[in-house]
Amino acid sequence: MTDRKEFRDLAPPEDAHEAIASLDLGGGTETVPLREARGRVLAERVDAELDVPGFDRASMDGYAVRARDTFGADEADPAELDLVGEVHAGAEPDVTVEEGTAAEISTGAVMPPGADSVVMVEKTDEAEGNDEVFVRTSLAPGDNVMLAGADVAAGERTLGPGTELTPREIGLLSALGIEEVPVRAKPRVGIVSTGDELVRPGGDLNSDAGQIYDVNSYTVATAVEEAGGEAVLYPHAGDDYEEMERILTEAAEECDLVLSSGSTSASAVDVIYRVIEERGDLLLHGVAVKPGKPMLIGRLDGGDSPSAYVGLPGYPVSALTIFRTFVAPAIREATGLPEPRTATVDGRMAVEERYGEGRRRLMPVGLVEDGAGPEGQRAGGGNAAGARGDTLVYPVDKGSGATTSLVEADGIVDVPPETEYLAAGESVEVQLFSPDVRPPSLYAVGEDDPALSRLLDRLDRPRYLSLGTREGLRRLRNGVPDAAVAAGDPEIAADHEVLGGWTREWGLVVPEGNPNDVSDVAALVDRDLRLINRGTDSGLRTALDDAVAALAEERDASRRELTDAIDGYELTVKAHESPARKVLAGEADAGLGLRATAAKLDLGFVSLGEQDVRVLANPDRTGKAGVEGLRTAVENVESVLADLPGYRPA
Amino acid sequence: MTDRKEFRDLAPPEDAHEAIASLDLGGGTETVPLREARGRVLAERVDAELDVPGFDRASMDGYAVRARDTFGADEADPAELDLVGEVHAGAEPDVTVEEGTAAEISTGAVMPPGADSVVMVEKTDEAEGNDEVFVRTSLAPGDNVMLAGADVAAGERTLGPGTELTPREIGLLSALGIEEVPVRAKPRVGIVSTGDELVRPGGDLNSDAGQIYDVNSYTVATAVEEAGGEAVLYPHAGDDYEEMERILTEAAEECDLVLSSGSTSASAVDVIYRVIEERGDLLLHGVAVKPGKPMLIGRLDGGDSPSAYVGLPGYPVSALTIFRTFVAPAIREATGLPEPRTATVDGRMAVEERYGEGRRRLMPVGLVEDGAGPEGQRAGGGNAAGARGDTLVYPVDKGSGATTSLVEADGIVDVPPETEYLAAGESVEVQLFSPDVRPPSLYAVGEDDPALSRLLDRLDRPRYLSLGTREGLRRLRNGVPDAAVAAGDPEIAADHEVLGGWTREWGLVVPEGNPNDVSDVAALVDRDLRLINRGTDSGLRTALDDAVAALAEERDASRRELTDAIDGYELTVKAHESPARKVLAGEADAGLGLRATAAKLDLGFVSLGEQDVRVLANPDRTGKAGVEGLRTAVENVESVLADLPGYRPA
Repeated sequence: MTDRKEFRDLAPPEDAHEAIASLDLGGGTETVPLREARGRVLAERVDAELDVPGFDRASMDGYAVRARDTFGADEADPAELDLVGEVHAGAEPDVTVEEGTAAEISTGAVMPPGADSVVMVEKTDEAEGNDEVFVRTSLAPGDNVMLAGADVAAGERTLGPGTELTPREIGLLSALGIEEVPVRAKPRVGIVSTGDELVRPGGDLNSDAGQIYDVNSYTVATAVEEAGGEAVLYPHAGDDYEEMERILTEAAEECDLVLSSGSTSASAVDVIYRVIEERGDLLLHGVAVKPGKPMLIGRLDGGDSPSAYVGLPGYPVSALTIFRTFVAPAIREATGLPEPRTATVDGRMAVEERYGEGRRRLMPVGLVEDGAGPEGQRAGGGNAAGARGDTLVYPVDKGSGATTSLVEADGIVDVPPETEYLAAGESVEVQLFSPDVRPPSLYAVGEDDPALSRLLDRLDRPRYLSLGTREGLRRLRNGVPDAAVAAGDPEIAADHEVLGGWTREWGLVVPEGNPNDVSDVAALVDRDLRLINRGTDSGLRTALDDAVAALAEERDASRRELTDAIDGYELTVKAHESPARKVLAGEADAGLGLRATAAKLDLGFVSLGEQDVRVLANPDRTGKAGVEGLRTAVENVESVLADLPGYRPA
Repeated sequence: MTDRKEFRDLAPPEDAHEAIASLDLGGGTETVPLREARGRVLAERVDAELDVPGFDRASMDGYAVRARDTFGADEADPAELDLVGEVHAGAEPDVTVEEGTAAEISTGAVMPPGADSVVMVEKTDEAEGNDEVFVRTSLAPGDNVMLAGADVAAGERTLGPGTELTPREIGLLSALGIEEVPVRAKPRVGIVSTGDELVRPGGDLNSDAGQIYDVNSYTVATAVEEAGGEAVLYPHAGDDYEEMERILTEAAEECDLVLSSGSTSASAVDVIYRVIEERGDLLLHGVAVKPGKPMLIGRLDGGDSPSAYVGLPGYPVSALTIFRTFVAPAIREATGLPEPRTATVDGRMAVEERYGEGRRRLMPVGLVEDGAGPEGQRAGGGNAAGARGDTLVYPVDKGSGATTSLVEADGIVDVPPETEYLAAGESVEVQLFSPDVRPPSLYAVGEDDPALSRLLDRLDRPRYLSLGTREGLRRLRNGVPDAAVAAGDPEIAADHEVLGGWTREWGLVVPEGNPNDVSDVAALVDRDLRLINRGTDSGLRTALDDAVAALAEERDASRRELTDAIDGYELTVKAHESPARKVLAGEADAGLGLRATAAKLDLGFVSLGEQDVRVLANPDRTGKAGVEGLRTAVENVESVLADLPGYRPA
């Protein structure tokens, strides 16, 4: 109920749009070379300063003649003209075409004085000796001649202000001889990420001191460029008031708009708030839209006129969502660029979604295209969300600022405050994060496996979420993904087609040379060895649990007695290499893992068995191109297995 | 019939696609800074080299505690813990959380040793003296903590080869600390325009020597960049064999693909042909598609391996059409970029089109959006092409290489060889010249007028063709344009709504100071003065003809007698300023024109009268936004008229 109270104090989203619209984002005029003007927007009308062509121009290879000399000529009775010279393109004519004469002329050449038309070479014959030409057709004045100014006449309006310059307009401006064009200036957008813990990508990271790489700076900077702005990165600002003030003021002096992001801790937000209040003008604090609560809008003193300021949320998906919804349209407006046509996609909810906060929600979602499987082909068949050729939409909301959400979500659905429930199959409009975003060709989930990782490299734009075998099968049963990957021997629904699979050797990854001489699961139970395990969704964990259960039966003990005796049995990590990496780092004596991983990391390995990995298809999607591509890749898995110790075809 | 014979020798279009596909366009791997990687395509899989986050991370502002110390705590019975210190984001913890203690922690900070969960600050109270904290809730281990590697674990597959890098992917790669990424190299495309007559925009032009500005170099270069290639411009090559060979060889040594264009004369084509034959390998010459007859495909020796070579037609629209159809897909394929989603638009033919050459035709077309006028709103009303909300498609084919066709056409319709007739209303698919192309908001035609030119500046993306009053009214009657502009007093169809208009003063533009003392039309008839006239479509011409007719009546002479007596009466030029500019250049004694033009060019003016200019709307389109914008602009025309001598409100 805390939230309900809070969002009543937040500004309506319309106020945020208005506040940003009231800011001045620059957008004057600058002059750029025509060669570099693609994608820019004309700031002024361009009138032609010259005629195009600048002279009466032959538009055929042939002979320049006086039309009246050819009157009545035809195949049977050609006109006979004296050849008095020739005119080439790019040269000034040095002949005059008098009555009864003709001059050879090439396409693009200047019409010689006296001539008013051109007969194409195919309608003529040259007499022997090249001193006469026979014209086998009658001409009218102007035939095959482009008069000076016929294409563009000097003084004509050619392009208006607001015209976006594509190769076509650049071609027309080339014809006018224009070297530089006046275009709308790109707003300069300063980007300040805040947080003492941030390190720019490529820098050295001290994880023990809580440092993390800065995600928002590059994400927001490239999103600014996509919207037509010029992004300028500033050094990270810590929570210190003087430092924050210095960096924000510097950015305000140099830029039209300053964007800050990254402050998730309350103290940093307080500091920024104080800087804007004291060195500028705070228009709005917090917007009644999830995730707009931490949003700030205002002005910052600096330079000749104040700079616009917007504070974005700290989590990457939230920052990109708020940028896309509130800031990008203002930048495009300033540059004169139209809203991109591909910014939205219509789809249907793949699952139901409940949300009771009573606040408008910009819900991050992923897309999957429903394909033409046997279910999909049945008229009206399948579930509500299963109509053929639909784009299905599923919420992606990990919270906690996961950066992987950036690539697992394709855009947002704008859910009104009063909507508490979206049914599966309900139509929604997805606002894509970028116009370039397109749904993945394949959406699959399940076990984490190095052979699978290599197979995915052969597919065109797949999306794969390593959620483990159990969660993969659960989602496949719900019908959202195209495919799932299962390790071990789980129960598989009858209608899930097995596209193929392979077998992998699993066991315990131990330090190089196996210094503790580990030989089996019993060693973990009986000796003081520290294990790193995998989570219960993982197929590897199931294999280990089965081995523990077998040992328990052998010893007539309970499974629980044995697992309680294993130090680290409950200590689970995320990915298939993670336990091995803990062993490599000296943090454990054994890690649940694969022979292939041990080999890759030059560690020792204690084999405990083999397990099958199977790739399963959603029956509604077996005709989908991405699924067919996966099938082909799995059928050709052998070439991938050769590089992976402990792998063999199923 | 000549054509019919010729195109039988031309290669089928499929062969051209195959020939280009057989060429090697480079497309290796290069490494670019992550900051500059937007729009590029990953060349290799990227696996995580580190855990994200790299440490167990607090995801709330609050207190780091041992969960078991809070078991059973609630509002009524809070747990009481000793406060032992604080941990900030970006700092290494210097405290350990022992049993019964807590440490203040900020979002993003490293969990201190001993703590396994975070209680949010809102669920706590600090005791006076700040040495104790009361926790009003029970926690489970892991609450409000993001474990190391929970977002991305070291060793995980994060992005696959072929992934296009948008801000989202750049964000994820930032989180991994990646500074540089391996991407597909952009093919280097050398551009060689041929023709002795070409001058690059910005250079000095000698029109007397038949020089013209080079249109294709910048058009093709920017189209190459749009397709994802890197364009390199080479100097123009003339028709000389040695020069052509030198430039093409240099381009082949430095580029993956060489594109030539511009040779419209047979001799230049012959020279290029010989260079490719002798210094390379000609795969194909001429494609059975209009306008592909002059197309060449081959290889050029140079560097370590031969360069690909494609010769484009010389006319700009043809060059862009052939580039777009045959070359751009190959460049995109080499860069790994997908075909743009907005490259096509569905529409209906606005007029019928007949074409009997029996050759596949890439027909340049313009687009106009049918709006919501009274006719459009009638269910099934209007003509076949007039259904509401349609995109109407009309052929644009000036031939003769007009550069204005570049901006008057929006794309092409690919018409199969066997199609001889497209009916009005027939559905067609338009392949846009660039994904950025969108139909104009307003498509209008008619009289050329400086007040109109300024009004158009106030509209968003209008297209206006200055074809004169007569042609403008004819096209409006055919129902294709949204609006027409008529000068003088022509007959106007009853259903064409007059949006408004103004009045302009017309007459004879003469040299400054009127040295010949011209005072009226009679001077042109009776004295030896040279006139420059406008064409019969022009409203100005109609006004002059009416004045001549009045004089003829006064003198009881025939109109023809008088016009025969005017030197230059038949000498017509294109635009409203053109006659005045001839006078300015000393090529005539008088030009038909406007007082406003005489004032602009500092010339003398002999007034012959005033005429109305009226703006008319297509009745099917009166609800269209672009037409409404035009109406508003015309209603506010007065502000524009103030700057134009001889103009006044109607």
